[in-house]
Amino acid sequence: MKTLVLVYFCGKYLSMSLNITQEAPKVSKIAENIIGSEIIKLAGEVNEKIKQGERVFNLTIGDFNPQQFPIPTELRDEIIAAYNKGLTNYPPANGVLELRQAVSKLLSERCSLDYTSDEIVITGGARPAIYTVFKALVDPGDKVIFPTPSWNNNHYTYLNVADAIMIETTPENKFMPTVAEIAPHIEEASLLALCSPLNPTGTVFRKKELEEICDLILAENLKRKALNKKPLYVMYDQIYWPLTYGEMEHFNPVTLRPEMKEYTLFIDGISKSLAATGVRVGWTMGPQAIINKIKSILTHVGAWAGMSEQVATAKYLNQLDLFDSYLANIKSELTYRLNGFYDGFQALKAEGHSVDAIAPEAAIYLTVQFNLIGKTLPNGTVISNSKEITSFLLNEAKVAIVPFYAFGASDSSTWYRLSVGTCSKENVAEVIENLREALSKLK
Amino acid sequence: MKTLVLVYFCGKYLSMSLNITQEAPKVSKIAENIIGSEIIKLAGEVNEKIKQGERVFNLTIGDFNPQQFPIPTELRDEIIAAYNKGLTNYPPANGVLELRQAVSKLLSERCSLDYTSDEIVITGGARPAIYTVFKALVDPGDKVIFPTPSWNNNHYTYLNVADAIMIETTPENKFMPTVAEIAPHIEEASLLALCSPLNPTGTVFRKKELEEICDLILAENLKRKALNKKPLYVMYDQIYWPLTYGEMEHFNPVTLRPEMKEYTLFIDGISKSLAATGVRVGWTMGPQAIINKIKSILTHVGAWAGMSEQVATAKYLNQLDLFDSYLANIKSELTYRLNGFYDGFQALKAEGHSVDAIAPEAAIYLTVQFNLIGKTLPNGTVISNSKEITSFLLNEAKVAIVPFYAFGASDSSTWYRLSVGTCSKENVAEVIENLREALSKLK
Repeated sequence: MKTLVLVYFCGKYLSMSLNITQEAPKVSKIAENIIGSEIIKLAGEVNEKIKQGERVFNLTIGDFNPQQFPIPTELRDEIIAAYNKGLTNYPPANGVLELRQAVSKLLSERCSLDYTSDEIVITGGARPAIYTVFKALVDPGDKVIFPTPSWNNNHYTYLNVADAIMIETTPENKFMPTVAEIAPHIEEASLLALCSPLNPTGTVFRKKELEEICDLILAENLKRKALNKKPLYVMYDQIYWPLTYGEMEHFNPVTLRPEMKEYTLFIDGISKSLAATGVRVGWTMGPQAIINKIKSILTHVGAWAGMSEQVATAKYLNQLDLFDSYLANIKSELTYRLNGFYDGFQALKAEGHSVDAIAPEAAIYLTVQFNLIGKTLPNGTVISNSKEITSFLLNEAKVAIVPFYAFGASDSSTWYRLSVGTCSKENVAEVIENLREALSKLK
Repeated sequence: MKTLVLVYFCGKYLSMSLNITQEAPKVSKIAENIIGSEIIKLAGEVNEKIKQGERVFNLTIGDFNPQQFPIPTELRDEIIAAYNKGLTNYPPANGVLELRQAVSKLLSERCSLDYTSDEIVITGGARPAIYTVFKALVDPGDKVIFPTPSWNNNHYTYLNVADAIMIETTPENKFMPTVAEIAPHIEEASLLALCSPLNPTGTVFRKKELEEICDLILAENLKRKALNKKPLYVMYDQIYWPLTYGEMEHFNPVTLRPEMKEYTLFIDGISKSLAATGVRVGWTMGPQAIINKIKSILTHVGAWAGMSEQVATAKYLNQLDLFDSYLANIKSELTYRLNGFYDGFQALKAEGHSVDAIAPEAAIYLTVQFNLIGKTLPNGTVISNSKEITSFLLNEAKVAIVPFYAFGASDSSTWYRLSVGTCSKENVAEVIENLREALSKLK
């Protein structure tokens, strides 16, 4: 209910129109105003259609269909062996030592990163790592810089009652933020949340771009040190790092600029590279003093990985040849789909349809565009925003993909995330054919 | 660094000695001031002794030794079957439907509680349930009432920047809070955190006591409704409910007073009753609107139970005869130890030692007292506080137990939690004998 209120302020009466709710709040302010994930909402609509017997290609979720993408057989067998050994009691608060040592070795041998087992905390998947990193670094009222589109940084900023500084990236830069875009905001921020390979775009930082950003942060922190101010930290989400394709290489701030170790908290885990989203094993690494704080917070949140899963992941990661050969296979399966969709979009574009796509670089996502605003549907309605594009794709092509506005991009964006983790090889041609038919109906 | 500061306040100069840190804070305020679990600290000391080759009876942790207390064989086999079926993708945000339905049935058939699958959210163990219940209900500056000793309510209150109203309970009431103790604080509180069977005491609410507390809350909320104020909620942690002994019965607010359903959030799960602390399956149930908020918060915290563990727990709980027979066995194993220790303490008391114990009622804990303040150690030192009692027990008797001050009781309390989940039957007599020898050295 809108109510007009008069407020006496600085010697003047100001009139303001406020929302006055009749009902007392039933929950905390954080809970009152929380918004669920947009992706989960869309998934709900899709599932409703499937329930009603429709055949829908659900390419929304950043997940895997285990029939298409099972976890490594050896990892599964190690989990079973651990359960058979009765490893069912509490894991240590920072994770099983053997797993932290295995992660340390993996990072050193495959990622050019030196972290000791005391600089790593095991979490129940990557989300608790993000949640606790935010909690450990961000105070209410702090400013958090992140690019859009990006995954859920808006929600983590909200949950910490912080202010978001959102940088809307451009297709010209493959939706990766640049030093020029970040620089104007850096002085006021406590945290810069970066992700590469980036969810939702499947694109990666180039070496020079990331070096420039690191140098900007190092210069800022040199100034802050002199002023005895809280440093600017980087949360670097590299959960998709093993999944780069072709010539693409994964870079990280600390390997490029070792001085960045003091200011970087990594998000990492097996959820995506080993198709193990439901196994719930992730980790964060960073400066030991901060990692200790994260461990304390995590103790109370209780978001630990299961005991058997921890021991099994340790045993699996201690055999890096298995990890390498699993990666070779999953990457070949994923690129088949990603390249297939990319080629399909290029064909549709060549046929004159208003679509586009960015060549796949990494992760399980393809960035695609449906530039359909102003097009006329068969029923005469003119498409006027991206919500209507999403509905058109779902209703006419039976294809569900996630609009970039669900990742914080502007409402007018016509770009989408297409996830390939849940589709079969055969689905690729079917989806493109469905899209072709639907697009042909537009005028 | 201590610095003397003069402050002009209400027309007077006050001098204050403050801690002024030279260093800028490196982390958030929450992280800066967080204190780790006292129990985990003590466990660290114990492990150090064990590393050095000492034989220590570690009765500190609220956990199980899987060699003594394995999870049910059928649950383990269902987890293995689920992994073999490839159930390794994301679970739904509120948990697998089949598990929510199984929990609904369990609550209805074994706990006289009617909750639909939409009023239940599955969490990765009980801690994330507590964390998200607090987050959903408690605003910064809100007041939270809880009895002391109790488990970690102080930490959850701290993490929500809320004010704790701690009620120190008495051995006369077996450390359960009474309506008379709660009533004076009720008007100003947002949440009353209760637990029964209580961790750390292993004692339970009697029917009449809990009814009186419920009636107090219902009367308060009737007033609040008339004033359009946020209600007073109860968080009711009943994670140990299946583990009651002898004539003892578990009661809960909603069965006793159905109107309490609107104001009660339960904490529950398999961690303790099925000795499955490392399997990480818990849940919370409550009013659907609040459960939906908890689900949204949990989506971002990411503290979900593993997919295979969820499906397996559903299949296991759908066979309540298995649950019943497992419980019969684990309860007999636990009571053997609890009664053994209780009898041992009674014997020590009868021999003239300054110890006591409360007869076991539930859970995996025995409440014991070492009333040793003022006693003289062989080296001539007089024991002057409970920290020195704890050290004496650890150093002289090689027995590690948790003082109630670690659960928020006063520093002068001489009461302790003795956990039996990690000890063998043979250990009982050995521990009592060690205590007898050590106590005999005191003057």
